[in-house]
Amino acid sequence: VSDIIGQLSKILEARKQADPGASYVSGLYQRGTNHILEKIGEEATELLIAAKDAEQSGQNSEMIHEMADLWFHTLVLLAHLGETPHDLLNELQRRFGTSGLVEKANRDNV
Amino acid sequence: VSDIIGQLSKILEARKQADPGASYVSGLYQRGTNHILEKIGEEATELLIAAKDAEQSGQNSEMIHEMADLWFHTLVLLAHLGETPHDLLNELQRRFGTSGLVEKANRDNV
Amino acid sequence: VSDIIGQLSKILEARKQADPGASYVSGLYQRGTNHILEKIGEEATELLIAAKDAEQSGQNSEMIHEMADLWFHTLVLLAHLGETPHDLLNELQRRFGTSGLVEKANRDNV
Amino acid sequence: VSDIIGQLSKILEARKQADPGASYVSGLYQRGTNHILEKIGEEATELLIAAKDAEQSGQNSEMIHEMADLWFHTLVLLAHLGETPHDLLNELQRRFGTSGLVEKANRDNV
Repeated sequence: VSDIIGQLSKILEARKQADPGASYVSGLYQRGTNHILEKIGEEATELLIAAKDAEQSGQNSEMIHEMADLWFHTLVLLAHLGETPHDLLNELQRRFGTSGLVEKANRDNV
Repeated sequence: VSDIIGQLSKILEARKQADPGASYVSGLYQRGTNHILEKIGEEATELLIAAKDAEQSGQNSEMIHEMADLWFHTLVLLAHLGETPHDLLNELQRRFGTSGLVEKANRDNV
Repeated sequence: VSDIIGQLSKILEARKQADPGASYVSGLYQRGTNHILEKIGEEATELLIAAKDAEQSGQNSEMIHEMADLWFHTLVLLAHLGETPHDLLNELQRRFGTSGLVEKANRDNV
Repeated sequence: VSDIIGQLSKILEARKQADPGASYVSGLYQRGTNHILEKIGEEATELLIAAKDAEQSGQNSEMIHEMADLWFHTLVLLAHLGETPHDLLNELQRRFGTSGLVEKANRDNV
């Protein structure tokens, strides 16, 4: 599981050369930024709804499915705008004030 | 960079024992699901706006910052509902029809 | 123009008796609350994108189109949950601290 | 209730001359389009959450409150971009294929 994000990033990059009619991701690139953002808005909405349903049912699988869809489309946006997840992950890490040290967890106020 | 998500997940789990007044994440847990979902909606909105601004300026840093905020709050939701990122990452991987094999990229129609 | 909202409300109410296959609104009712909320999320997203594009182009027509779509689907939600726009409009009015008196505008801090 | 939207529009217009420190709406104008769009995204999110809660509780008042907040901030956006609700309401009406005739309701497939 450890480097799935990095692997997906390579696949998303490769999809820039693929036939937009044959690849879902290539089709997203072709339709452009507004279309990718619409998908992100849709998936964020579906995540909110699924999380409220999970709260009632105690079943999280649909919520996890929608969260994966949301992450997926944000990674497509990142690739479309010429970025890799490297800076995204670094930025995430900075939020925790860690240098990758879990032990620091109890000393920070994240 | 390879296992930042896994490390953050452990920190988010540890924050369940922290003082809600001293830790931002603990405060989110205490305020509950609706509040965490409001933050996800806010961050998704800020990502859309930042992506449109990036399209104009050619500068992606603010967009990456907002995307990290969005991922961060989805990971908080996941932890709050008792899940780890393991299933999320597996679900993401399934979208690409890979078993971790980048070579498959050109054969799939993702 | 003065009572369009009230007129639409009556049409939306009448659509509850219509064939879901023949009427877009009846189809929304039949698919249920989650589907109507997904549409609201989509239209809110499209409004944000159109507003950012309007900021650049100076052309507001697409933004107004998306705003009408958003209002339309919120009115469908209202009807689906058994409400009329009456309480919504009263609530809106309360935000301005007015009893319908425009003259008060300069004295309030809305 | 019939012309609340028109009245609010006049108040929103008047707020363009008000002190941004003393009026909430003037403060929104001053902070600019991105800030108004962030508020619209927040209110749309809160509406989704409140609608899901209403579905469970059978109580619609919080949902109506959030819907009013959403409409309010879209009207602020409209005013900020130099528009009146006139075109918005016309656009809404067009969705129903009416010329203000409720009797047409049963003949259209809206």
